[in-house]
Amino acid sequence: MHQFKSINKKANTIPQFNMAKKFSTRAEDYSQWYNDIVKHAELAENSSVRGSMVIKPYGYALWENMQHELDRMFKETGHENAYFPLFIPKSFFSKEASHVEGFAKECAVVTHYRLKTDENGDIVVDPDAKLDEELIVRPTSETIIWDTYKRWVQSYRDLPILINQWANVVRWEMRTRLFLRTAEFLWQEGHTAHALESEAVAEANQMLEVYADFAENYMAIPVLKGTKSPNERFAGAIETYCIEAMMQDGKALQAGTSHFLGQNFAKAFDVKYLSKDNKLEYVWATSWGVSTRLIGAIIMGHSDDNGLILPPKLAPIQVVIVPIYRNEDQLDAISEEVKGITKRLRAKGIRVKYDNRDTQKPGFKFAEYEYKGVPVRFGIGPRDLENKTIEVVRRDTLTKEIMPMEGIEDKILVLLDEIQQNLFDRAVEFRMNNSRNVNSWEEFKIEIEKGGFLYAHWDGTSETEQRIKDETKATIRTIPLDAKDEVGKCIYSGNPSTKRVVFARAY
Amino acid sequence: MHQFKSINKKANTIPQFNMAKKFSTRAEDYSQWYNDIVKHAELAENSSVRGSMVIKPYGYALWENMQHELDRMFKETGHENAYFPLFIPKSFFSKEASHVEGFAKECAVVTHYRLKTDENGDIVVDPDAKLDEELIVRPTSETIIWDTYKRWVQSYRDLPILINQWANVVRWEMRTRLFLRTAEFLWQEGHTAHALESEAVAEANQMLEVYADFAENYMAIPVLKGTKSPNERFAGAIETYCIEAMMQDGKALQAGTSHFLGQNFAKAFDVKYLSKDNKLEYVWATSWGVSTRLIGAIIMGHSDDNGLILPPKLAPIQVVIVPIYRNEDQLDAISEEVKGITKRLRAKGIRVKYDNRDTQKPGFKFAEYEYKGVPVRFGIGPRDLENKTIEVVRRDTLTKEIMPMEGIEDKILVLLDEIQQNLFDRAVEFRMNNSRNVNSWEEFKIEIEKGGFLYAHWDGTSETEQRIKDETKATIRTIPLDAKDEVGKCIYSGNPSTKRVVFARAY
Repeated sequence: MHQFKSINKKANTIPQFNMAKKFSTRAEDYSQWYNDIVKHAELAENSSVRGSMVIKPYGYALWENMQHELDRMFKETGHENAYFPLFIPKSFFSKEASHVEGFAKECAVVTHYRLKTDENGDIVVDPDAKLDEELIVRPTSETIIWDTYKRWVQSYRDLPILINQWANVVRWEMRTRLFLRTAEFLWQEGHTAHALESEAVAEANQMLEVYADFAENYMAIPVLKGTKSPNERFAGAIETYCIEAMMQDGKALQAGTSHFLGQNFAKAFDVKYLSKDNKLEYVWATSWGVSTRLIGAIIMGHSDDNGLILPPKLAPIQVVIVPIYRNEDQLDAISEEVKGITKRLRAKGIRVKYDNRDTQKPGFKFAEYEYKGVPVRFGIGPRDLENKTIEVVRRDTLTKEIMPMEGIEDKILVLLDEIQQNLFDRAVEFRMNNSRNVNSWEEFKIEIEKGGFLYAHWDGTSETEQRIKDETKATIRTIPLDAKDEVGKCIYSGNPSTKRVVFARAY
Repeated sequence: MHQFKSINKKANTIPQFNMAKKFSTRAEDYSQWYNDIVKHAELAENSSVRGSMVIKPYGYALWENMQHELDRMFKETGHENAYFPLFIPKSFFSKEASHVEGFAKECAVVTHYRLKTDENGDIVVDPDAKLDEELIVRPTSETIIWDTYKRWVQSYRDLPILINQWANVVRWEMRTRLFLRTAEFLWQEGHTAHALESEAVAEANQMLEVYADFAENYMAIPVLKGTKSPNERFAGAIETYCIEAMMQDGKALQAGTSHFLGQNFAKAFDVKYLSKDNKLEYVWATSWGVSTRLIGAIIMGHSDDNGLILPPKLAPIQVVIVPIYRNEDQLDAISEEVKGITKRLRAKGIRVKYDNRDTQKPGFKFAEYEYKGVPVRFGIGPRDLENKTIEVVRRDTLTKEIMPMEGIEDKILVLLDEIQQNLFDRAVEFRMNNSRNVNSWEEFKIEIEKGGFLYAHWDGTSETEQRIKDETKATIRTIPLDAKDEVGKCIYSGNPSTKRVVFARAY
């Protein structure tokens, strides 16, 4: 429909709006390219607290848009929000054996509840204010929530409980990366309780579908849906369902998980209900979560050497308008015209920003919004006012088109959808080009170095999975739900296998 | 406009929908009355973690509505959201002398970052995982935020910074009450940075107005606007502005504060900017916050002996529809009619719930929603279907009226506004009836026992304020912004005073 032309730009020209810094390209230094975008697109930065990030307004606005859509999806599937304590008594962790194994190793422990001034005038921990039982800052809330559900559940009439929590959680990671792995991060965690096993399994599957829908239709990132192998399963789950995405360096990123917890937590916290036929039964559980890590997935899923690229549906600014002028009269005339344009775009629900800062030149602004991944940029100058036109540049393709001002709001609505679809299509193509079957251990060792998803036969044992990981750093990312039955031999052990699973190196 | 009739209900009839429990009245036991409402209206409950609450879905939905309106008001006044770390290095607190005094006494201290299994198989804190510097779980975020702003501010072009954070905070309170005083609570905290003192003062005043607007026009609670005396000022502020509300027991509740912080935090964290005339200047600051404590204010501001009363603008359910039927055919016919009614109400933006649970009788449901403070209740039975009418009961007055189904949505829109206004008017009247001038120390000691706001002359010294508090438990709640100049003598010291301040006992 649109006739965009390539803008006059050298390949890999890097915007230098931040003059103090030359940004890395993916080819030069992928990891630095990522860090540059996080920092210079003003998404987040490291704080003075080891491993904890500051999410800056632009990054937080992106997270708010993500929250908004997810929250709507959760409510449409019958869930309510609630809030549970940040602190969890240490003893709660011990109640579910595999859970404590998974989470005790990396947690923040509160041992005291007061500071005091010592004889030298220094502020020190007051040794008299030691807690009888240490408190753990929640790394996840299954234990405190199931301790609460025990009070809420007596009869089948009290079920199901369908609750979600938006919260901060802490996992004491030694090696951190902004958004991908930090000591503190923001997330949502759903925790549901059901009378029947089948209902809990259906719930875990439903939330997997919600996550896949969100990833593909809002983040514009294609995901594989499947289960985790026992080695990669959530500590305390019977089955972990996941969505797995491929980043531009060919590594996998786990983008969301939904766990069928069986009766493990109900037994650990003694949560039983009286069934319709008057029997006391343990309750069945699920939990599911996605986090600010998804922002890392958006960055690495779409961005290019010119900076961040945001999917229109989640972008804090969908259209930025930059005035091009030589004097104040011209700026006034442009601003007057922009008022109407802005109003018409907003009436269609489009998020618009008019940047009339007088402290920066248009070229600087162009580079800045390009680097910050704003999907559509308008340039409006004196000639545009005469011709009643706008120069429209799309961020995904960096092409431009002159469009008439009249009816621009409808054209942009269509264009935003096109960009959203294009980002998804490109990511699908990239994944296709970087996914392949491998059939021998020799082949596997060569192919894993190239990155991407390797579909290979596996004998189903944890031992084999662990050895493959030790030798290649590749893990089983998922056993796809749609994997076809296929007779084969495990690439590592040669033992029989009935379907291929997906191996990759992962974030 | 409406012709509501009193419903056939004995005074102080307490709904017994929870058959295990007789609820307290305000006269019998005010404190228990409050606790009963928090618990049995399903707003919140105590958790297994001392002093930490579980906010239940109904209470959280109320908080979400409050957040939604406040967030909109913050954004309309130019603020953006961001997120800062939960943990604050201990040394940060020492940097602002009065700040550490105010907050070090009641904080949760993280000293270790790992648990381990000891020789007995018990989970214990790993002594090898001791932090070099202890981390404080944020009681408020000035220090970590000003440590961040130091990196963000170089020039006047970087100012103002207008940021808000939605977060959990922890203050280790020894005596806790749900919503009013808990170890962990949810809040928002605004933190702004300005080039000029006048801008910061204007910001602090602007946010006071936003809070007053929210309290009066959404919570339907009248508030006094004023400043705090030095004894009640925020630790680290030059001036604390506040809104003070009166609860039904005559006690005051501080409902929100906005602080002008001067250059205290800029100096403590060395945050300077290069001004337009090329001078290095310290930055001026404000901070402002309201919390889940406001839910306590709503409960105690409006509710009666029949339970919670919620202002329509914030109520999670504004209209509940209860079908009255003897058999399934009748229920089906009612449900069919309700579909259209619900749709028309929702099209007007009204939050409606249709309660067609078959496990409870209408009388039980009436009592339940009455106790949970739903502003409007519809009863629809077979005769209503014939007559095309609805029995409409308002929660604030417990009166009923038969209304035609046709055009019900417009009538309810008007009715919700009437209820909102009535709640505010009642609260204004209550406050008026419980506010008075007192002119002598003898009078003060007698009047303070009756509760309410006492307007009295004060000599302006901390010593006098402290003595009055020691002798009567009353504190200066605020020095009203609109206090008139009036020559008088301090009720306690007899020293000269130029205006009356407001004394009360407080939550």
